[in-house]
Amino acid sequence: MSVNGRSDDRPVRVAMDAMGGDFGPKETVKGAIEALGNDNIELILVGDQEPVQAELDRYDTTGRSVTLVPSVDKIGDDEHPIRALRSKPKASILVATKLVKSGDADVVVSMGSTGASMASSVFLLGLMDGLERPCLGGPFLGVAPGTVMVDAGSNMDCRPALMLSFAALGSVFAHRFLGIENPRIGLLSVGAEEAKGNKQVQESFALLKESHLNFIGNVEGMDFFTGRADVIVCDGFVGNILMKFAEGLGGALSGFVQERLAGSLSPQDLAKISDDLWQTTNMPRTMGGPLFGVNGAVVLGHGSCEASGVAGAIHTAVRYVRVGLVDSMREELSQIHKNQQTASEGSGAAAKVKAKN
Amino acid sequence: MSVNGRSDDRPVRVAMDAMGGDFGPKETVKGAIEALGNDNIELILVGDQEPVQAELDRYDTTGRSVTLVPSVDKIGDDEHPIRALRSKPKASILVATKLVKSGDADVVVSMGSTGASMASSVFLLGLMDGLERPCLGGPFLGVAPGTVMVDAGSNMDCRPALMLSFAALGSVFAHRFLGIENPRIGLLSVGAEEAKGNKQVQESFALLKESHLNFIGNVEGMDFFTGRADVIVCDGFVGNILMKFAEGLGGALSGFVQERLAGSLSPQDLAKISDDLWQTTNMPRTMGGPLFGVNGAVVLGHGSCEASGVAGAIHTAVRYVRVGLVDSMREELSQIHKNQQTASEGSGAAAKVKAKN
Repeated sequence: MSVNGRSDDRPVRVAMDAMGGDFGPKETVKGAIEALGNDNIELILVGDQEPVQAELDRYDTTGRSVTLVPSVDKIGDDEHPIRALRSKPKASILVATKLVKSGDADVVVSMGSTGASMASSVFLLGLMDGLERPCLGGPFLGVAPGTVMVDAGSNMDCRPALMLSFAALGSVFAHRFLGIENPRIGLLSVGAEEAKGNKQVQESFALLKESHLNFIGNVEGMDFFTGRADVIVCDGFVGNILMKFAEGLGGALSGFVQERLAGSLSPQDLAKISDDLWQTTNMPRTMGGPLFGVNGAVVLGHGSCEASGVAGAIHTAVRYVRVGLVDSMREELSQIHKNQQTASEGSGAAAKVKAKN
Repeated sequence: MSVNGRSDDRPVRVAMDAMGGDFGPKETVKGAIEALGNDNIELILVGDQEPVQAELDRYDTTGRSVTLVPSVDKIGDDEHPIRALRSKPKASILVATKLVKSGDADVVVSMGSTGASMASSVFLLGLMDGLERPCLGGPFLGVAPGTVMVDAGSNMDCRPALMLSFAALGSVFAHRFLGIENPRIGLLSVGAEEAKGNKQVQESFALLKESHLNFIGNVEGMDFFTGRADVIVCDGFVGNILMKFAEGLGGALSGFVQERLAGSLSPQDLAKISDDLWQTTNMPRTMGGPLFGVNGAVVLGHGSCEASGVAGAIHTAVRYVRVGLVDSMREELSQIHKNQQTASEGSGAAAKVKAKN
């Protein structure tokens, strides 16, 4: 069996950073207890002993596996991740990630600072070969739940080789997590033709074309909704802007619908549809976002999540472990890099493009 | 009075490329006739004599100023713009643009190939100093009609000096066209802090900060909807992706609402709200997009426009001329470049950034 996978029926051991997010530990504990009812898990709550125990005491956990592992302090969104990790060596995110490192947990889930979670993952679990940073990926639109975007915001100024790694990671995720056979990979650009786009995209196109991935060429902004591709590759600058743009547009359209339908629907129905419309553009708030590229399973949730979002992120984490994503991703990346080396020993286009970077 | 402005009460002379778009000359002529009823214009229809005359004959234009200037052939979306301009020297877009060049028209409006319109504008009217290509700008979201984006899709891989030019052009548009005093300029990035974003954005930040523009710093994807900035500056790669993404998301959410409300609303009301929702993310289809940076007024419409979209683009064109946008933009660009030269003669940060590019 895979070291990182849990394809058997044993419960998945979830290290929950109970201090993370805007509403930790109240909503994180509540959500984690909710998850106990949904998924076959052993729950390990990591946080300041007293407040977490106080929250835990609100619930009846008789017969369920719930442990509290004490930590000291938390890292806020406003802190510099690396500096904060040094000055708070017992912070909840570090203690929780260490449980995965030591094999005492299968996955860590946090609603806390994205920067701190990524830094502690890199520091403790290590990066997969060929990456400089982890990346964020997954479906992000409720109206397009089968379309995976990588990178959703962690890497700026990406070289073409890194874009190829994103494609490989996204392909594994789409295959293993979403069950899509031979996922179609599209490169986000401004037109379908090979010559379209900026320099980064033109050079990435050449690398993707020569890879063993199922590359279908360039796709455009509307293709998040047309189903042309299963995985859409872009750098984290564009990915972050798109995620936040979708959130903003969803909110604005939700307000628009609410205004236009006032009078035609009951206040309850109106609130419901407006809320659904907003949710549909805010998928990471309901299911968390898996971190790709570190040697261990990590799922990040939105800081503003309440209990249901926390339970959703834990559900994602359980699936992440069950399908053995970490091992599959490491294998795919290693294959990609082996092929690239072979290509660069030849004299093909890929070698020339690689040399430029 | 300004050469390019028409602040008096004389009619604006509109050279309409009657052959352009998916539905020319039928819808272009119909839309132009509709515009005669909305705006004080003299209409100059440019196109293949017979089909355009046949369309024109459907309408009673007694007492209105309508002229037909014959041209030969049109340039399609699938043709290479520069090559097509050479092989079809009497194409409608060239003949129409020449009327602006010669002073026989105040503005050209086309629903045809964007590439061909841009190329003929650059070739015949010339670029303003400091630009390498024209750019597209304006509000593009019905839910955020006061937020201007520049560049919406024509320039890839922009140097920081070009991003500064976009900011200047957008600022003039927001001030003169939308009536916003001292428009707030935001730079599109992934976080508010100066160090956030890719290299292009970090370097552009330094230039914008030292400019005389009302620069408020970085903004994020959601700020198209928060009203934090009047003008959002990005390169054409990101701008094009955002425009098409918004179109796609609007369409998807419109379908979502239609499905969710089936049964709660009458089919007519349902169709209306679904249509409104779609329209609200597709503003350029109803009002056209002004071209910035060429020495003459040019408005481009979406190829799929029917008559009402054509009339909307003509309305934009009339306003473009009345407020004298071309002269104001040229003055602002010249001011920006004068300041940059002064700065680069000194030893400030701007000079160092400029030298790197």
